[in-house]
Parts: sequence; structure tokens; C-alpha cells
Amino acid sequence: MDKIKPRTLSGFMELLPKKQMQMERFMQVLRDTYSLYGFTPLDTPIIEDAQILLAKGGGETEKQIYRFQKGDSDLALRFDLTVPLAKYVALHYGELSFPFRRFQIGKVYRGERAQRGRFREFYQADIDIIGDGKLDIMNEAEIPAIIYNTFSRLGLKKFQIRVNNRKILNGFYAMQGLQEKSGEVMRTVDKLDKIGPDKVRAILTEDVGVSPEAADEVLRFIAITGTNAEVLSALEGYLGRNEIFDQGYEELSTVAGYLSAFGVPEENFRVDLTIARGLDYYTGTVYETAMLDHPEIGSICSGGRYDNLAEYYTDKPLPGVGISIGVTRLFYVLEEQGYLSDEAVTAPADALVLSMTGDMAPAISAATALRDAGIRTQIYTEQKKFKAKMSYCAKLGIPFAVLLGEDEIAENKLSVKNFETGEQVTVPAEEAIELIQSALAEKNRGTVITEK
Amino acid sequence: MDKIKPRTLSGFMELLPKKQMQMERFMQVLRDTYSLYGFTPLDTPIIEDAQILLAKGGGETEKQIYRFQKGDSDLALRFDLTVPLAKYVALHYGELSFPFRRFQIGKVYRGERAQRGRFREFYQADIDIIGDGKLDIMNEAEIPAIIYNTFSRLGLKKFQIRVNNRKILNGFYAMQGLQEKSGEVMRTVDKLDKIGPDKVRAILTEDVGVSPEAADEVLRFIAITGTNAEVLSALEGYLGRNEIFDQGYEELSTVAGYLSAFGVPEENFRVDLTIARGLDYYTGTVYETAMLDHPEIGSICSGGRYDNLAEYYTDKPLPGVGISIGVTRLFYVLEEQGYLSDEAVTAPADALVLSMTGDMAPAISAATALRDAGIRTQIYTEQKKFKAKMSYCAKLGIPFAVLLGEDEIAENKLSVKNFETGEQVTVPAEEAIELIQSALAEKNRGTVITEK
Repeated sequence: MDKIKPRTLSGFMELLPKKQMQMERFMQVLRDTYSLYGFTPLDTPIIEDAQILLAKGGGETEKQIYRFQKGDSDLALRFDLTVPLAKYVALHYGELSFPFRRFQIGKVYRGERAQRGRFREFYQADIDIIGDGKLDIMNEAEIPAIIYNTFSRLGLKKFQIRVNNRKILNGFYAMQGLQEKSGEVMRTVDKLDKIGPDKVRAILTEDVGVSPEAADEVLRFIAITGTNAEVLSALEGYLGRNEIFDQGYEELSTVAGYLSAFGVPEENFRVDLTIARGLDYYTGTVYETAMLDHPEIGSICSGGRYDNLAEYYTDKPLPGVGISIGVTRLFYVLEEQGYLSDEAVTAPADALVLSMTGDMAPAISAATALRDAGIRTQIYTEQKKFKAKMSYCAKLGIPFAVLLGEDEIAENKLSVKNFETGEQVTVPAEEAIELIQSALAEKNRGTVITEK
Repeated sequence: MDKIKPRTLSGFMELLPKKQMQMERFMQVLRDTYSLYGFTPLDTPIIEDAQILLAKGGGETEKQIYRFQKGDSDLALRFDLTVPLAKYVALHYGELSFPFRRFQIGKVYRGERAQRGRFREFYQADIDIIGDGKLDIMNEAEIPAIIYNTFSRLGLKKFQIRVNNRKILNGFYAMQGLQEKSGEVMRTVDKLDKIGPDKVRAILTEDVGVSPEAADEVLRFIAITGTNAEVLSALEGYLGRNEIFDQGYEELSTVAGYLSAFGVPEENFRVDLTIARGLDYYTGTVYETAMLDHPEIGSICSGGRYDNLAEYYTDKPLPGVGISIGVTRLFYVLEEQGYLSDEAVTAPADALVLSMTGDMAPAISAATALRDAGIRTQIYTEQKKFKAKMSYCAKLGIPFAVLLGEDEIAENKLSVKNFETGEQVTVPAEEAIELIQSALAEKNRGTVITEK
């Protein structure tokens, strides 16, 4: 028979077992942390009606989307988790209680040009809080705590949550008479890190048509840095000149003010006036998260406050706030940079039971006892030499071999070999279980990420 | 702005939050149980090269598949988890250790005619054990234990794992000179439950062209029932006439013989000579699982032994054994039949913290303490009347409200209201946490499924 060469499409992540185990632990931390904050898990279809998915229409998204016909249906694969959420909330509005807090971790699809570290199928891990008509600023204040806890529980330390408020930016640009140009100005200012203040000033005055005075004001404004208290205090100087600005200042102060009650250390949080996050969607607090040792990676968790989640589907105003982690890309980067801990068990099993006798029944009973104690156990089943069995165990990284020969069976004991220490003991089953359990607890105690 | 009517495609399951929580618990039991038996989790792409996915070609599958072009690529959505596994093992052969034990729980796609209880996007939960060239019969013997434990941990009691061996069937048909017709004969025999033995006999002799003597032999054979010991003993009468049959008998005896060591009760396991499971794929032990009170549902977990997992991609013989649960359909049926337990918490949070003062800081600190203790906690953020807050809590089914007013803050205590008992106590935070934890442990102790 002619064989077809097996391959996986480029831009699609497919991990080997050990890496997949690390990914599972990673996702488990996300699920657990999101759940702790009272978000309910959702799972929406990957395929949606293309008309609904593309209600907003236009732009880069439409080009990247996977869209196809099936029978008479015009279908598309979701390209994010926000549009399906908007559909879900509009569709099930009457059956939900608001504020509605949901998390979703799922695959999304974008047919981008394939390149290293870019994926066409990737997981996003989103949380959103949706209000019915109104949503209190406290929700925006809680988000940095969730970001902080998520990355801390993953084991990351050197990261900074950067927060701004779109009302401050909009209000400030209005003061300078730059409302009309605010989009272009923000896009230019966004390049500050890359091209420096002089070039920003040149583009603003020459290309965007900002007056030299206003350009100086803009540069002065975005140069405001320091501790959160210092930045907020510098912003006080602009108060009383624009209502939107004043609102934004009030909100930003509230968000920053509750940080210590939420247990977010000052060093992991920074008010940053250069953060803008796109143009039309966000209306209040905006968030980015930087890995301090890897600024080149960009933001690893972003989001913000918006006023109308589902405006394409319903007249009901549904304001919300949400953040998203691009899990697949983040995992890829962490792996590349050597951030993933190798300590925890990544083998399919914690213990491999090896029978040295023809009758497998004692080995099966031992395995059943281990499993009942929560130890992931494989019975080695194949007719191989002892050495081959042990090398299977070592190759997979299974930390314990449990050996059962005539002696063990006669004495009603198990021989337990710890592959890390090389130690082997022969003890009653209960003792073997305790020994394995405590060693596993030690091994699996660490976090998914370890920083060097 | 014109609104687009939100809808979810028919044949696509989209659950409301409470049902989704039950689904999550359901899947967690599958993950945990599969893991206990030493299976490693895999996650393969949902989109594959259509040529690879359809290597086998032909049949119903090809008509149902979601297939589309993107640029120059001929793509398709996976329609099961077995073909992607075959591709994975052939592709990564050199990097895997055999026996390779993996589980995968993922969405698959079949564009079937939409009808009640049938889904176009549905989860399958598969385990497979793949050998390199050979795979010991012990693997086939372990599968009923995994099925038994999976459904027991879900809370199902009245189910029966039905097991047969294709070698017994093939051997028996060879004895009757029916090798050529074995496919048609098995398909006819498969209708026994529906049409009865007389009609089966009529079809065999009139349509299939089986001699009356052979038809009687077939009917006598499939009429063999009783305890496992009785069926095996009846099969002994056929030994020595066909090598394949004798092998099958040997294997079936081994599988049945290890059941008690694996802790599978006799009443949950039955040797059933009418089980065949399709024609060309399975070559040894085959499994089906029936819900005894709902035979109309059909098998809820099926599978078997096969000789060549990846024959379309590689010359390497890769025998295996696997089973699959159609999670989405099973969940749907269990829900319809009222099998899902309402005991465990299905709310997004275990506790809702309500601040009775303007300053939210004490409420935030209380929430942080609850979360640190693993209690899923939401802070109620909106400016609403007390009654509206309590009704939000009740509507979501959050079991505990934690109230913080001037008194509680002054005394450094929390008021905890248990919504189930109506009881309210004011106690120090540590005591509140213990109280909530123990009540939650009690509530969440039960299984996902409860039988009436």
C-alpha cells in the first residue's frame, strides 16, 4: 500500500508528551486562579455562522479568518473569544445574572503568515465581567489582582502590570484640541520606546499636523513617570480643565488605591501613561503586562474596559472589562527561553509496577491499591527483559518502579525503587504508598515557571 | 445600527453556566481517571491536511467531513481522535516510548443531519495503548477496569461492560465455512435484539445464502448466554477445531480471568458473543458498555483491539487497544434523563462578599483571605440595594454570603450566611473559612451522576 507522509500543518502546535504535561499544568493554574475569583467556565462552539462572527466586519481579521461553506451554510472558525462571548450574552441575556463573570480557555484560529513563534491555531485564556447597563469601577480595580495572582501562581516574578485609563488620554488630547487627531497621535506616541522622543515630535509636527506647542505638551505628558503616587500627583496638575480627564483620574486613583488591599505589590504594578491599546474598543482602564527580562516579547496579558460588548447583536448596553492571555504563544516563548520547570513529574505515570512472576494478579492488586491512593500507576505489560523494563521507566521519567517477585508476594510487601536517588526498599504496601506520596508531593510542589 | 440576530448553529452544544459547571466536573472525572491508569494527555490540532485525515478514504465519513480550502491548502476538521493519533504516532515514532499510552479529550466534527441529541461538534474522550510491533493481552484485560472505574467515579451503577473477541467470531465462522460471508452474517446477527432469532434465521438462509445447518449453528452459538464462567465453558466445546478460535478463547479467558484482581464486579461485566463492532478494524477483544435502565441509548463506551493503527502512514506494525466515550451525547442523554446531580455547587463562586460600607478595602481583604484558603470568592461590586445583592447571590446559587458592615469591621469578624440553611453567624475570619470549607466539602462530596 502507498503510504501518505504524516505531517502536522505549520502554525499548529503539537507537543510531545512531556511538553504537553507542562502545558496541562500551565492551563490548570489558569483555570484554578480564574475560578478563585468567581468566574464561571464557558465553552462555546469553534464554528459559528460567518455573518455573526464578522458582524463588526472589515480589517485584518477578515483576511485571516477561516471561512467556508458547508451545504448552504456560511461558516467560520472563531478568531477570538470575545465575539463569541458577545453573541452568548446577547443570545442568553434573559438567563444570565449580571454582573456576569466568565472565563474561557479555548482554541481560536487566524490564518496568519506562518512564521516562527506565530500560530494559526492557538489557545486564548480570557476573563470578562459584563454588567447590565452599568458596571462599577471596582471591577476594573480587581483585574490587576487577578493578573498578579495568575502569573505568581505560575511562578513568574519579574513582571509588571501596566495600567492607564483611556479617559485620561482622551481628556488630555481634548485639552490640547487634538480630539480629531487623537488616533494618529496615540499611534505615534506608541512608537516612543522604539524611535525616541525627538522622532516622535518630528512626526507629530510634520506628518500629523500637531502644533509645536501641542507636541511639546504631548511629550511632556507622556514623559510623566515615577512611582504610582508620583504619576498620580503629576496628573493632579491637569485637573479641572476637562470632565472626561477628571473622571479618568478618579478611576485610575481608585484602581491604584485598592492595590494593597488586593495584595498586589507596588513593584508589580505601574501607572503608565503611554499604554493606549488600540483605538475604538476600550473606553476606561487599559492593561498590559510586561516580562521585565524580556521586553521584546511584548505584553503577555492585556485588556481593558469597554462600553458595549454586544452592540452588533443587541440594543442593550453591556459594559464590561476583560483580559486575555495568548497561552500558546506565551508557552512557546517560555519554553524557548528555558522558563519551564523540569522538577514536576512529566511522565504519564508516577509509578510503574513490574511483575517478576507469571501470574499478574499480585501486580494488578498492587496497582489498584496505588491508584486508590491517587498515585498514577502503569502496570508494565510486555514480555521483555528486566533491563528493557527499567529503561522504559527511566526513558519516560517515571519516578518510581514498584517490583513484585516471589519474595515480595510471599512476604506481602512491595519493593520500591526511587529512580532519582537510586534507593530501593522493600516495605508493606501502605508504607510504599506513603513513601511515594510524600516524594511526589515534594517533586510537584514547585511552580510551572522557574526564573533563572 | 442594524442588529444581527445572535444564534448558535444547530447541532452545536452551548451550555448555560450551571450546566457547563456540571460538564466541567464530568470531564474532570474522565481526566483524573484516565491519568490514574498512566495515560498521558495529548492535544492535537483540530485542523489537519485533508489528504492525511482522509487517507483511509470512502464511506460515510467523507460525506460528513468539514473540508475547505485556505490559500492553496486542502484542509479538514478532524472527525475522530483516532486518525490524528495514528498520524501523531507515525510522525513522532522515534520520540515516543512503547507501549505508548495516551488519552485525549477533544472536539471532533461531523456534518450529520441535525436532529435532537445528535451533534455536529462533540467531545470524544479516548484512551489508546499502542505497542511497537507487539502488544500483550494484559492491555486488553486492563481496559474493562478502566471503563468500570470511569463510570463508577462518575456515579453510575447500573451499567454493564460487554466483551467479546473477534478471533472467536472469525474462528467460529471459519468452522462453518462462512469466512467469505462473515461480514454479512455479523451484520444480520447484530439485529438479533431488534428482529428476533426467527427473522435472523430467515435473512441468513434466504438473503445471505447460508445453509440451514450453518444458520442453526450460528443461532445456537449466539444463544450462548449465562455467567462469564458458563459462557466460557460452553465455548470450550468448540476448541481444537480452529486455531484462530482457540487463540480468541485463550484471550477472552485471560481478560475475564483478571477481572477480580482489577476489582471489577461480576455484575458489571459480561462476556457477550453478539458484540462484533464493525468489520475490518478490530482484530481481538471488543468492548461495549450498556446502561441497564436505558438500552435505547446504545453503547456509552466502546472500542477494541486493532492490529495496525497507522498503516496509511507507515510500514511499522503498530497494534493497539482503545476505547472512546462520546462525551457530548452522553452528557446530553444523562441530562435529559435527569441523571445529573444537583448537589454540588454549580455557581461561579462559593462565597459572595458584600460590603455594607463605602470603603471596599475590608471586603477586599476578606475576599483575599477566602481565596487564599481555596474558596472561590466574588466581591459584589455594584451599587445596589441589599435585597438586590442577596437575590443575585440566591439566583446564581452561591451557597454563602459574607457580610461586612461597621460592626464586623470594628470586631474584626465576618458574618456568614448559609443560603441553604438560612443560618447566619458572626465569627472571626479563620472560623468563617473553616465553616465554609467544611460545608463545601460536604456539598461537593457526591458524584456527577445520581441514579434514581
